Amino acid sequence: MSADIRFQEAASALGYSFDGELKVGGNYVPLLRDGKVLYISGQVPRVGTTVVVTGRVGTDVTLGQAQLAAKVCAMRALALLQRELGSLEKVRQVLRVTVYTQSAPDFTQQSEVADAASELLHFVLGESGKHTRTSVGVYQLPKNASVELDLVASANE
Amino acid sequence: MSADIRFQEAASALGYSFDGELKVGGNYVPLLRDGKVLYISGQVPRVGTTVVVTGRVGTDVTLGQAQLAAKVCAMRALALLQRELGSLEKVRQVLRVTVYTQSAPDFTQQSEVADAASELLHFVLGESGKHTRTSVGVYQLPKNASVELDLVASANE
Amino acid sequence: MSADIRFQEAASALGYSFDGELKVGGNYVPLLRDGKVLYISGQVPRVGTTVVVTGRVGTDVTLGQAQLAAKVCAMRALALLQRELGSLEKVRQVLRVTVYTQSAPDFTQQSEVADAASELLHFVLGESGKHTRTSVGVYQLPKNASVELDLVASANE
Repeated sequence: MSADIRFQEAASALGYSFDGELKVGGNYVPLLRDGKVLYISGQVPRVGTTVVVTGRVGTDVTLGQAQLAAKVCAMRALALLQRELGSLEKVRQVLRVTVYTQSAPDFTQQSEVADAASELLHFVLGESGKHTRTSVGVYQLPKNASVELDLVASANE
Repeated sequence: MSADIRFQEAASALGYSFDGELKVGGNYVPLLRDGKVLYISGQVPRVGTTVVVTGRVGTDVTLGQAQLAAKVCAMRALALLQRELGSLEKVRQVLRVTVYTQSAPDFTQQSEVADAASELLHFVLGESGKHTRTSVGVYQLPKNASVELDLVASANE
Repeated sequence: MSADIRFQEAASALGYSFDGELKVGGNYVPLLRDGKVLYISGQVPRVGTTVVVTGRVGTDVTLGQAQLAAKVCAMRALALLQRELGSLEKVRQVLRVTVYTQSAPDFTQQSEVADAASELLHFVLGESGKHTRTSVGVYQLPKNASVELDLVASANE
């Protein structure tokens, strides 16, 4: 089963479609390629025009909701890679993922939030989805998003 | 009109000079080159020895002031690239920009703050100024700066 | 004196051993190599299974304790590079370091926290330890860690 089929499976499991325009907010681009290295802009859990998980994790938002947010961010990043490369089979390796969680003052499970994104990347991409990661708890995020994720990946060719 | 002339125009429009030493605070360097890739350290909106915009955005500091801060950070990054490369014409592409905004708890316009930096990079560098971007709201920044920006760029040769 | 011997000296000075497993929390890897570039996951000041400095810097935790935390994070990153490369002599350059400090609302010495990591990298690696750096103050960190550090480095071969 290819990475692209697993991507569709993950989208179905989440109950969201990532087929539409992947809107970004300002005067920048969602993806840039430099040789074999691909940079993805910070993704909030936006589906269509709606940020589907907003608020502070640990008070307004549960760990489970934050994990859903992290998965949606990761799916957006995968969708961008798929559009650039034609197929997710052409991802050689996810190199770096940074996960920012809008946190309550005593919420310390940022790693557990990020794990949901990491597991999704591994599910869709297999060994190519293994990555280094940094997880931090921030004070706010654009559009009051609960989670934001960016990544750097490499392509096979 | 060259990128270097547009850089001077942008400096004039801001009313600041970026000709002096670009001081960094500690035991590190403001720019490192690895082949064609250039890494720029996090820049706060320091002009000479003064951080010109300090405080929390959304309470102490307006969106407009934060956008000014973001522009000053971006100008410092451009000044560093110009000194390293001799001319901003030698910037092939800005690859990645991260913008950290010292935010009030309910300030969610981090993208709008970062837009000011993105627009400046595009104004000075044209197509080479297009970039991927991550914007987050942090709790504090060095010297109580309102904004901090770092970037990765590539050079033509 | 080699970088590996200086690494042992730094470990002795800190009073910690970095010989054991360098545990990471979730479904990702601590280090990835892409050609000559090495990415290190975000490191909290964990020694063995204990995060040795926790809490908010500026209230619960002093600047000095946060600097200790930053050094432990940097030592973990160096230990990971040493295991991957066989010797720290094979580090060509530390390219990028990001230091996240769990900050009190008015704590603005994030650069001084990060300086401790920068000085350690320079002590162990000499000129190869010079790097670009970003220091920010975040609201929370995994496991209530006071500091988190990630880095990108290049290898000689």
